Amino acid sequence: MKAGAALCIAICGAALAADPGTAAKPLSSAQILDAAQATDWRRPDPANTLYLELPAGRVVIELAPRFAPEHVANIKALVGEKFFDGLPIGRVQDNYVTQWGDIDEVRKTATATRRLPDETALAWNESLPIVKLPDADGYAPATGWLDGFPTGIERKPAAQVWMTHCYGIVGVARGDWPDTGSGSELYVVIGQAPRHLDRNIVLVGKVLRGMELLSSLPRGSAPLGFYDDQEKGRRTLISSARLASSLPASERTALEVLRTDTALFTKYVEARRNRREDWFLRPAGHIDVCNLAIPTR
Amino acid sequence: MKAGAALCIAICGAALAADPGTAAKPLSSAQILDAAQATDWRRPDPANTLYLELPAGRVVIELAPRFAPEHVANIKALVGEKFFDGLPIGRVQDNYVTQWGDIDEVRKTATATRRLPDETALAWNESLPIVKLPDADGYAPATGWLDGFPTGIERKPAAQVWMTHCYGIVGVARGDWPDTGSGSELYVVIGQAPRHLDRNIVLVGKVLRGMELLSSLPRGSAPLGFYDDQEKGRRTLISSARLASSLPASERTALEVLRTDTALFTKYVEARRNRREDWFLRPAGHIDVCNLAIPTR
Repeated sequence: MKAGAALCIAICGAALAADPGTAAKPLSSAQILDAAQATDWRRPDPANTLYLELPAGRVVIELAPRFAPEHVANIKALVGEKFFDGLPIGRVQDNYVTQWGDIDEVRKTATATRRLPDETALAWNESLPIVKLPDADGYAPATGWLDGFPTGIERKPAAQVWMTHCYGIVGVARGDWPDTGSGSELYVVIGQAPRHLDRNIVLVGKVLRGMELLSSLPRGSAPLGFYDDQEKGRRTLISSARLASSLPASERTALEVLRTDTALFTKYVEARRNRREDWFLRPAGHIDVCNLAIPTR
Repeated sequence: MKAGAALCIAICGAALAADPGTAAKPLSSAQILDAAQATDWRRPDPANTLYLELPAGRVVIELAPRFAPEHVANIKALVGEKFFDGLPIGRVQDNYVTQWGDIDEVRKTATATRRLPDETALAWNESLPIVKLPDADGYAPATGWLDGFPTGIERKPAAQVWMTHCYGIVGVARGDWPDTGSGSELYVVIGQAPRHLDRNIVLVGKVLRGMELLSSLPRGSAPLGFYDDQEKGRRTLISSARLASSLPASERTALEVLRTDTALFTKYVEARRNRREDWFLRPAGHIDVCNLAIPTR
């Protein structure tokens, strides 16, 4: 029915190579990325990089010790015990979360702690290297990035910063009491950012690669997206969970993440706030912290 | 590792029946829904209800003729020709869109129009029965609901209203020119609301049921989430697309949608702006128009 290229929804232009003939226009985000130097990228610390090995492939998660030091340490202790190996992905709730780990509460731990302090937010102070987003946010007085993670900021009255519940962010499931989440069950956001959870539950990291392995799983039929008894036998099982640092270099995933504390990143954000690709009729002049995916390569 | 119930992430409380002993607390959204009368619900017009029949089940889409009358009419003409029957779901891009229809541009139409006018927004006027959300929005001067669809509102200078790109909203794919979308390829948002697309592309409706059939499909490996040549043979094919009104009543999906123009809905919004279930440590005091899913039953 149409002549020409496939219908693209918004990013035909971005998928094309930069055209030097269009230099008079503001650069698109793709063109800005093309111009990035090696120093605009960072390599996540292997000691804070978690590999969730699934039958369909590897999910790479960057842990965020600054945001939740005790929870991250506990998860590392669990991983060191091979606690997650063989446990299921037990809950997939559409437009909400995928949850894995000791869903059936069958596993014991020798070294990890069962109850941890509240790490839903950390104290704000001037010296935190936060990169602020210029746009207003409805759920927080301000937002930005800290250590590459999306961050809510409240200087007054609470003087807190916290990781925001964006797509791909990983958290620690808990019961009705704040100290009931040990890290034995983790979840990842697979839909619209549930920002009302911010500062209600502890977030520990972010999926850098392999999100599609967690987001495209069959949804569970039981309440809250848990798999029901008939579905339980077909649950995806975790082959293993390992820190990258525990593997030989040859078995690690080579991965770089765009730094958020550079002049180039500031330009990148502006290009995403106002999309200039030919496809667009009208730039938004705004971006939500959860709409800005940090590039990886 | 834990005594008691499964770890729930935010909605344990909502899943429980209303407890009359807790009447002193503000009602939760679940309790408000429990109190809804028959008149708080509406039945979508069968003439504007599209069934996308997939091998895994039926997707129910409510069309929005007020927002895009010519595009909706064209889609109905295509459906009347059985245009979509046998065509593939050809693109699934993680955290973005699922797209279906004449992806391979192989089908002819006898009665539908190939080019349509710009319907990315409609003129605002006082008499439109818009229900406004009290919270600020970053992408629009105001938001709310019109005919049950999430809506952006700009009284000045543009005097426009438009449907917002939320999870489950259905749009008309187009090429680099605004009039290149006929409805022969449609998409649905399956991730974080891509609000930067608002007023850039025509939206025609919303999935009321069966989103999980579109959101959990394997992601495509080619650029923009299109399936590559190796994957094409395994694409999900549309068994049929039909208007509910063209089927006998016995074959229609009985479905009601919570009305957005009632006093009960206003209470419901408030309960979602400030979650009072026991699980929550801190109510958000805010909700984004794309975070408020309109209940169906």
